[in-house]
Amino acid sequence: MKNYKIAILAGDGIGPEITAEAVKVLKVIEERNDVTFELLPAAFGACAYFESGSAFPHQTKAICDEADAILKGPIGLSHEDSKRIPIDEQPERGALLPLRRRYNTYANFRPVSLPKSLAHFSPLKAEVIGEGIDLVIVRELVGGLYFGEKEMGVNDAGLRYVRETLEYDESQIRQIMQQAFKLASKRRKLLHNIHKSNVLKSSVLWNEVMEEVAKDYPDVQVVNMLVDAAATALCLKPTQFDVMVMENMFGDILSDQGGGILGSLGLMPSACIGPDKAYYEPSHGSAPDIAGKNIANPYSMIGSVAMMLENSFDMEAEAKNVWAAMQGVFADGYSTADLSKPGSGVTMISTVEFGDKVVEKL
Amino acid sequence: MKNYKIAILAGDGIGPEITAEAVKVLKVIEERNDVTFELLPAAFGACAYFESGSAFPHQTKAICDEADAILKGPIGLSHEDSKRIPIDEQPERGALLPLRRRYNTYANFRPVSLPKSLAHFSPLKAEVIGEGIDLVIVRELVGGLYFGEKEMGVNDAGLRYVRETLEYDESQIRQIMQQAFKLASKRRKLLHNIHKSNVLKSSVLWNEVMEEVAKDYPDVQVVNMLVDAAATALCLKPTQFDVMVMENMFGDILSDQGGGILGSLGLMPSACIGPDKAYYEPSHGSAPDIAGKNIANPYSMIGSVAMMLENSFDMEAEAKNVWAAMQGVFADGYSTADLSKPGSGVTMISTVEFGDKVVEKL
Ligand SMILES: CC(C)[C@H](C(=O)O)[C@@H](O)C(=O)O
Ligand SMILES: CC(C)[C@H](C(=O)O)[C@@H](O)C(=O)O
Repeated sequence: MKNYKIAILAGDGIGPEITAEAVKVLKVIEERNDVTFELLPAAFGACAYFESGSAFPHQTKAICDEADAILKGPIGLSHEDSKRIPIDEQPERGALLPLRRRYNTYANFRPVSLPKSLAHFSPLKAEVIGEGIDLVIVRELVGGLYFGEKEMGVNDAGLRYVRETLEYDESQIRQIMQQAFKLASKRRKLLHNIHKSNVLKSSVLWNEVMEEVAKDYPDVQVVNMLVDAAATALCLKPTQFDVMVMENMFGDILSDQGGGILGSLGLMPSACIGPDKAYYEPSHGSAPDIAGKNIANPYSMIGSVAMMLENSFDMEAEAKNVWAAMQGVFADGYSTADLSKPGSGVTMISTVEFGDKVVEKL
Repeated sequence: MKNYKIAILAGDGIGPEITAEAVKVLKVIEERNDVTFELLPAAFGACAYFESGSAFPHQTKAICDEADAILKGPIGLSHEDSKRIPIDEQPERGALLPLRRRYNTYANFRPVSLPKSLAHFSPLKAEVIGEGIDLVIVRELVGGLYFGEKEMGVNDAGLRYVRETLEYDESQIRQIMQQAFKLASKRRKLLHNIHKSNVLKSSVLWNEVMEEVAKDYPDVQVVNMLVDAAATALCLKPTQFDVMVMENMFGDILSDQGGGILGSLGLMPSACIGPDKAYYEPSHGSAPDIAGKNIANPYSMIGSVAMMLENSFDMEAEAKNVWAAMQGVFADGYSTADLSKPGSGVTMISTVEFGDKVVEKL
């Protein structure tokens, strides 16, 4: 009997609602496998800040340290509400980035996947989606502008200024490249390397290291593409991509564009993997505008559970079952109000009902 | 009789082909107005580098200095070919960025516009395009990572590293904000301010200055949106946008995403405006793969002429005529092979024929 500890950080906004559905799925998996999941709920995000003055309290850190894996809901407040928290304590700077740094989760995997049967969710024409979109963005998650030095002040001319640094060394680039090549060689053996080497020197080093790592994966075909060209291509012909690798900020923007081409960020789970620990989270925000309404789709959160089962607990078969169960619920004609419009021919169900139906399928 | 000097930088790849069509349009405008255009061709880009050892030769600088406006074609080589030029001499770093810096063209206007009648070009569903897409991206063009200090070397641990700086002062932000608000107040009075203030301190200052400038434009409604959310929204509901303002790198990526939602970067002209001089260019690259085939659509280059007529020569009515003529050619059922697939119901014509038809309409 395996015993895993899972830290549960439900987060802000719709976080608690969709986390509750993900937990139901964990219970089913636990019941029918030779495994126990010890769930350790902990405060994280704006809610934690208002409770305790810290968005990532000591106790939460201790729980995460102890856990075998971390399931994290979305965090953050609306633009206006976030002004109630000092800039450096806001949950992104005060909790999320520190979490990433603490466990050095440098490899962020964001599947952008839409089977042909769900093409109606997408804003793209059916002919653009063809046989379906199935790509993974591999995003470097603990370097670049996100973690570089930052300086704000008043310059000699009396003007307010700000300066921040984008920094990478070859080891940071090499480790993410290795992850990307490894994934590509397990999949279609096609890797799009996304960069901006015609302007950024960081991309020049990025590409150099990429070419070095490529030598160890002679069977993977590399296509180099400028980040701006990739933004065009993701709209025009997303099916050309299988694995895409890129630095932190590019990955932030393009993966949300990925959510756009699927029809919703609600369809975007992700895995954030470090040398010793991994955490799993939806790629979207906390959607304060629809929080508490029982209409948010728990797909991204349950999908994050699937990624956890596969990556942290080696339960690949159960991970596949979870994906299939969710797609089965959609295939049966059900959806939630955040994903689909009334009158679009689907039967509208709530967050809780969606979770229940996934559990039934399982 | 007005007399304007126009520097003509045809550039690389498809540049010369599409520039030739733009020049035809300038001739028509000249014939029927009380104006003469003195066209001053000059070498610029990779072609200039191979000819003279400089991608932006002294003579070209002298011609641009003297000109009332500059019409610039796309520049650059394929990923592989660009390795034939030392990194700092490559046309982007050796010509384009120096051009922008020389004339301090801080305000880059990139219309992303698709009338309902051309919705078939777009990868987006007709219902997403609705009554048409009509937004303008206002991109800061001479600051940020593009122009910050860059350092490459080997660190104490013996690892190659690279460091670059993203820098803005309040005056740089204020001047682009003023342009954006001015444009918004002439249009639908709606400005989306695109930022990443939950991570970047530069966005914190950006937003501060935005709020200061906003006080002078009380009739413009501001919507603050994170850059990643904007990448989602541009796919899901592009019609919500009218004017969008953002810093340099964000503008690079989102404007190419704009080309993606239109169906081609070939539909993206742009204006780059400084305090004393402006230049006009397509937002796309030099497309070496289709160069010399007489299939590239000259829309972006002719559209850049329209923007020049309006902004540099105060010929607003003729600018409108040029847009209408191009849309008329599409409306008559003609297109080029780079934009449309055979069998899509359009009559395929060449670059030159497209230019001729625009001239006929005029
Ligand atoms: C919340 C924010 C800091 C975060 C990021 O920018 O990484 C989010 O957008 C994401 O993509 O995970
Ligand atoms: C060619 C390149 C340097 C340029 C940029 O990044 O600004 C181009 O992509 C653009 O958008 O004008």
